[in-house]
Amino acid sequence: MEAVRNKQVLFRGFITAAPKETDMEFRVGTAELRIPEGFKGVLVKNLYLSCDPFLRSRMREFYNSYIPPFTPGSVVEGFGISRVVETNDEGFRPGDLVSGLTGWEEYTLITSTDRLRKIQVDEKIPLSHHLGLLGQSQLNHARMPGFTAYAGFYEVCSPKKGERVFVSAACGAVGQLVGQLAKLHGCYVVGSAGTKQKVDLLKNKFGFDDAFNYKEEPDLAGAMKRYFPDGIDIYFDNVGGATLDAALLNMRIRGRIAACGMISQHSLSFKEGIHNLYMLIPKRIRMEGFIQSDYLHLFPQFLDRIGDLYKEERIVYMEDTHQGLESAPATLAGLFSGENVGKQVVCVCRE
Amino acid sequence: MEAVRNKQVLFRGFITAAPKETDMEFRVGTAELRIPEGFKGVLVKNLYLSCDPFLRSRMREFYNSYIPPFTPGSVVEGFGISRVVETNDEGFRPGDLVSGLTGWEEYTLITSTDRLRKIQVDEKIPLSHHLGLLGQSQLNHARMPGFTAYAGFYEVCSPKKGERVFVSAACGAVGQLVGQLAKLHGCYVVGSAGTKQKVDLLKNKFGFDDAFNYKEEPDLAGAMKRYFPDGIDIYFDNVGGATLDAALLNMRIRGRIAACGMISQHSLSFKEGIHNLYMLIPKRIRMEGFIQSDYLHLFPQFLDRIGDLYKEERIVYMEDTHQGLESAPATLAGLFSGENVGKQVVCVCRE
Repeated sequence: MEAVRNKQVLFRGFITAAPKETDMEFRVGTAELRIPEGFKGVLVKNLYLSCDPFLRSRMREFYNSYIPPFTPGSVVEGFGISRVVETNDEGFRPGDLVSGLTGWEEYTLITSTDRLRKIQVDEKIPLSHHLGLLGQSQLNHARMPGFTAYAGFYEVCSPKKGERVFVSAACGAVGQLVGQLAKLHGCYVVGSAGTKQKVDLLKNKFGFDDAFNYKEEPDLAGAMKRYFPDGIDIYFDNVGGATLDAALLNMRIRGRIAACGMISQHSLSFKEGIHNLYMLIPKRIRMEGFIQSDYLHLFPQFLDRIGDLYKEERIVYMEDTHQGLESAPATLAGLFSGENVGKQVVCVCRE
Repeated sequence: MEAVRNKQVLFRGFITAAPKETDMEFRVGTAELRIPEGFKGVLVKNLYLSCDPFLRSRMREFYNSYIPPFTPGSVVEGFGISRVVETNDEGFRPGDLVSGLTGWEEYTLITSTDRLRKIQVDEKIPLSHHLGLLGQSQLNHARMPGFTAYAGFYEVCSPKKGERVFVSAACGAVGQLVGQLAKLHGCYVVGSAGTKQKVDLLKNKFGFDDAFNYKEEPDLAGAMKRYFPDGIDIYFDNVGGATLDAALLNMRIRGRIAACGMISQHSLSFKEGIHNLYMLIPKRIRMEGFIQSDYLHLFPQFLDRIGDLYKEERIVYMEDTHQGLESAPATLAGLFSGENVGKQVVCVCRE
């Protein structure tokens, strides 16, 4: 069988800071469009790839986490939407659209098919939204934004109508949805973000009650006090670090903190540590870490409810699509500059 | 009416380190044994006074806590067991034995009688045990050891038979009881303490499965790994700081941390902060602060169960009684030297 071109993005070697474009290598190789003898699985053509903050943790030489690091020199691995080209797994047929862990390349042989999910196409929902708004993964290290927001808000935060909700990294793929769900639940919602553009989006596009730019607030605890004079019932924490420390001082009695993301990254770069944890006691705060894959039984319900809300235009979802696999390294690096807005997706090929 | 002698311990002024004997002043004054015109309440003779770590937080000029500081120059206030001498409150009669907030002096006028509790005397249980083993308080800042251990272990830790439990400050008034309740619940229990004598007591008197001296462990996380090779299900945290940071690294998936005490003190003196909080996420840990007074509906059940366990000699309780009000300042200071063992009580007068 003839070999076809296979563009690839390789992981060069372990990093200690945020990923840079040069930490990855783009190359053009070849692939044979058949499943090699002795393998069972599906050969897929990758259509959309997801750029997620958690990929950073796989680029560090750090094994004490829920996810092993990449092997230097190997193809970067991440979530994607793909079309099945060939299969010897009875669960799939050529032409099926699937989402799951795949390679940052044009064609990938996926042998762990138990982790692949077939996508039911709905013409009113862009296919790429299955990486974000409607995304989930059976891998427990994945933080697919839509289901993470859903499980975290409803299952971990125990929200009640009228409660005061604070969301950090609120313009991110998880935060924007948490804020909208909280509004639909009847809560008062304030978000923090790092640029004026994002603050404007939170207030004008995502419907937050208010928002502020944390970079313009030398006294973060004081800023929160302005927006929550009576305190915070729910803090959906996407960042950890100084924002968490400030939120701890502003929590209400029996407040809840959902520890969602990036705390691991911060703990390595945020040398000061967390100082206000003692507030857990007088305020009787419950702080809980979670992973969306613990809530998979809720996924069908989630798909229905969020899909409907989206089609009824009661929630909006922002995606920033970059064209071509060549754009993937810069897109990943861009996640950590704070300039990007909305879910970052790389379109390898439209179909 | 004739005035009687009234020994008193006064609070001198705000402190920034642990309390020293010289931060308090002993003096001999006088008191009239009647309730002054215009006041409603009870005049009590104090019998036993409780020396608790939380008193330290009232000696600091720090208002952002659940408890206001003492006024310099005023009588130290704490929990005690007293006998009613005179009353114009219909809920009490002369001769009643009560527990509640009182002064560090021989006679005190108590006007907040809604917070006093009448003690049902049981000849098989020493009266002073109502400050520790059987103690509770309707004030939410109180950490009365017995009920704190009971509510914290059963209500916050969600213990299951066979789970692995770690207790810090395990020889303290709360810790010793938590460990014994956990053993009765069928758990594997290890405690940490700061002297060889305490470690021996934990193993030989309080029935812990094992115990270690944290001062002899330069690598705390490694020490915990030795005692919990498969990780910790429940950490009952009485100290915060470096011990909490090490425990975070050793928690099992869906582990629980009950934040009970002293974290506030540590946060002010433990400048490094907590660095391993990111472990909450991959391990899905629930960390929760609590205050025993949120669980007062369980108090009658607690009194019955713990009283019975004590009388059946299925739990032991260690108390260290110091004679005379004069000994109170040194007893309080001694709490922070780490040398004391068991609940520290000052006996002002036997009856």
